[in-house]
Amino acid sequence: MSSKPSIPKGTRDFSPVEMARRNYIFNTITKVYKKYGFQQIETPAMENLNTLVGTGGDESDTLIFKILNSGTFLSNITSDDAARSRWINLLEASKSDNFNIEDYKKINADVPKITNKALRYDLTVPFARYVVQNQNDITFPFRRFQIQPVWRADRPQKGRYREFYQCDADIIGSDSLLNEVDLIKIIDDVFTELFQGKLKYTVSINNRKILQGIVESVGEQEKFEEIVVAIDKLDKIKIDGVINELLNLNINRKAIDNLMSLCATKTIAHHSSEKLDTKQNISFIISDLETLSSELGEGIINGQKGISELQFIFEKLQNLGIDTANIKFNPSLARGLGYYTGTIIEVKIDNFPSICGGGRYDDLTGKFGLKDVSGVGISFGADRIYDVLLDNNLYPEFKGDTTQVLFYNYGEGEEDTCLKYLFQLREAGINAEFYPDTVKQKRQYNFAVKKGIRYVVTIRSNEIASGKMFVKDLENNDSKELTIEELVSLIQK
Amino acid sequence: MSSKPSIPKGTRDFSPVEMARRNYIFNTITKVYKKYGFQQIETPAMENLNTLVGTGGDESDTLIFKILNSGTFLSNITSDDAARSRWINLLEASKSDNFNIEDYKKINADVPKITNKALRYDLTVPFARYVVQNQNDITFPFRRFQIQPVWRADRPQKGRYREFYQCDADIIGSDSLLNEVDLIKIIDDVFTELFQGKLKYTVSINNRKILQGIVESVGEQEKFEEIVVAIDKLDKIKIDGVINELLNLNINRKAIDNLMSLCATKTIAHHSSEKLDTKQNISFIISDLETLSSELGEGIINGQKGISELQFIFEKLQNLGIDTANIKFNPSLARGLGYYTGTIIEVKIDNFPSICGGGRYDDLTGKFGLKDVSGVGISFGADRIYDVLLDNNLYPEFKGDTTQVLFYNYGEGEEDTCLKYLFQLREAGINAEFYPDTVKQKRQYNFAVKKGIRYVVTIRSNEIASGKMFVKDLENNDSKELTIEELVSLIQK
Repeated sequence: MSSKPSIPKGTRDFSPVEMARRNYIFNTITKVYKKYGFQQIETPAMENLNTLVGTGGDESDTLIFKILNSGTFLSNITSDDAARSRWINLLEASKSDNFNIEDYKKINADVPKITNKALRYDLTVPFARYVVQNQNDITFPFRRFQIQPVWRADRPQKGRYREFYQCDADIIGSDSLLNEVDLIKIIDDVFTELFQGKLKYTVSINNRKILQGIVESVGEQEKFEEIVVAIDKLDKIKIDGVINELLNLNINRKAIDNLMSLCATKTIAHHSSEKLDTKQNISFIISDLETLSSELGEGIINGQKGISELQFIFEKLQNLGIDTANIKFNPSLARGLGYYTGTIIEVKIDNFPSICGGGRYDDLTGKFGLKDVSGVGISFGADRIYDVLLDNNLYPEFKGDTTQVLFYNYGEGEEDTCLKYLFQLREAGINAEFYPDTVKQKRQYNFAVKKGIRYVVTIRSNEIASGKMFVKDLENNDSKELTIEELVSLIQK
Repeated sequence: MSSKPSIPKGTRDFSPVEMARRNYIFNTITKVYKKYGFQQIETPAMENLNTLVGTGGDESDTLIFKILNSGTFLSNITSDDAARSRWINLLEASKSDNFNIEDYKKINADVPKITNKALRYDLTVPFARYVVQNQNDITFPFRRFQIQPVWRADRPQKGRYREFYQCDADIIGSDSLLNEVDLIKIIDDVFTELFQGKLKYTVSINNRKILQGIVESVGEQEKFEEIVVAIDKLDKIKIDGVINELLNLNINRKAIDNLMSLCATKTIAHHSSEKLDTKQNISFIISDLETLSSELGEGIINGQKGISELQFIFEKLQNLGIDTANIKFNPSLARGLGYYTGTIIEVKIDNFPSICGGGRYDDLTGKFGLKDVSGVGISFGADRIYDVLLDNNLYPEFKGDTTQVLFYNYGEGEEDTCLKYLFQLREAGINAEFYPDTVKQKRQYNFAVKKGIRYVVTIRSNEIASGKMFVKDLENNDSKELTIEELVSLIQK
């Protein structure tokens, strides 16, 4: 192989400047998570295949990257008469011109025989597995955060990668709604710091029980999932689009009107409330919840429970205050058909996919044999946040991160003096390097410019005697003669 | 699946306390790397299979975890008449009782037809691929560091994992030996900080050209590889063992005696020099090199070049000084038969495998079409260093990392006051949390103790009025009444 090397589609290399930006995002999120008492864990990239499959539905199973068993990877096929026959039949059939993809389905069930490990596709399933496996060592309620890559065999496209990072925080083993309050405050803290007040973002909040209550109140609970899928599209296809989808589900016009008045119209009203300040805005939401409660009626017990849960959360947020988040109650928010059972949270900026989301799930660890453990969590999408900060020019300069001083290399005569001063700077905690080869001036200065090094130090024989060095400041384009002590204090200023 | 969940053998979960220790190691190494002008990059976990295979020899190819192609993973078999026949033949043959592992070799060459991606097994090959792919954007000489996991389908055993971290620093695009000096100083800086002067460690240094020169001087250059393998075992099997292995290679007794006097006896002499201080020790090494130079004779050009390279490095180290490393010249050090062509470095503590190693390689990027680019690098073995620090009780306490203050939960009456103070602490940058549920006192205190939280704050109705709170210090087992301001300054002290 000596053709131009490449990396698998949907994956990325990160250059030094990209790493500095990514670390800035991860460090900001980490700092906030720790401030709220969350503790970091990591899990292996590979999980046993049976830990991962059958958790996120069939569709997500096909997104899992599977690791081929090592060595004699076919031994579970060759030792199993039925499986061997299926494989021989498939291979024989493939000689025919009529052979097509449908035929592969015949050996789909044999895939776990040649792979027993796979790359995780999220951090939630490995966390549930971790909790069950380590339940005797964990002190509940357990506040954990986890920042690691995940892999999905998705079709790559702009903003969608096959390897990307998730930054998850979950609290497991506590039903208290104070946990939800903390998570929403974390979102406010993180984006206040990252966006510096320069970018508007919306934190939409709902409760899965309210959605259930609304559907129940119009007597259509049997079509709950289909209705949720339709209502969830309100932002995209607007009220008329949702109404059409609901008509196609054979829901009668009166029920649809009730559905719309219960959730869609309120969502629209909120969109016009953006000019209110946070306290006013939350008062508005709390009165919306009261209206919804009386509209639903006392008989809809589940829906009323969802409403009183959200009332608690919004009242606490009103007391504590919100820095920059535009908080919304959005009764049509569903976040797909996942495992959420209570609060649902989604963070968006205009014209961009969700940058953070989460919610409460009542039985995540059940699959692994630990029942009735409630959890609630959020996940920041680091890769999307990266793009948002870049598009909006919101990264700080990362000066201390790169080399601060370069020693110009004149040759052997000045080498030892340069090395002495170089190590004095490093001992003072200053990032410094000595250009290692004696090459032309232009190349050495070019190196400093391209690497973003501010100071270039040159020492010639006459300067060795005087104990001074010639320091060029590439940022201000001026230069002066300094002792090493003067240079240290100049940089540390 | 509701049996006890598990993770693949050779992989590990990292609990919060383990993460704090690991981050301490990574942060220490990162800080030192940056001080020396190194810049961080990351590469994807998955590389194209043809990037990875055929780089580290056949043996390392079998250590590569391969990703099964998605979807119709057999399509390159079913569409290739020859491959299809091989597979059908193998499956048919497996019906027989005589079928054995040897038969699998017939389809080994077909494996890349069902997998085209794999997990990286080191950081050096992906780095070489990165350099070639991004050569137009990189400013050479390029000092990069990279701290990421790698995966090897090795047999797991104590201290050997299938997923583990490497912490690499390389300089590519410079022949200067000043780079070697920096790398050895980095090793000294990192272990001086991590071991705090409490643990002895040896940095053994050699040059691959010296090894070649020694073998050449006894006229056995054709058996270079076998001789290196034998000499490399000196530490393990001692002089007599090495002599026996050399006799088995049909090397005559006189040549063996010469080999031994040229390298082995010097190594032994150094072992007795441990009581010398660093400067004396390096003087001793420099005079050893002079002796070796005259023993080899001027005709052994390659060997003399290796000697003068090491002389340069040791002289610079002598001038700059060494903090805690026990520096050795070890002419029998080979570090396997890898790609090294110049300096070789290995760091060890007694009775433990190597904890850091590296060297110079002259043509790492050649495989990817970029010729004659020299590189030199080191790699810290984070997982082994982790064990060494743990065994020797060398971790600092990670106080600021966990929650510092827990608010005791009495119930609704005090909730809002607790929340107000909780967020005041967080705003002051103090990690704090509110026990989310109203449970028994014992359970809440137990939570604080297990999580390592020092202060537990309780607020009862009478304290709300006074503006004071009851603060229990679990470390000193005393308690006092404090205002929120007093608590903040107590903790920030």
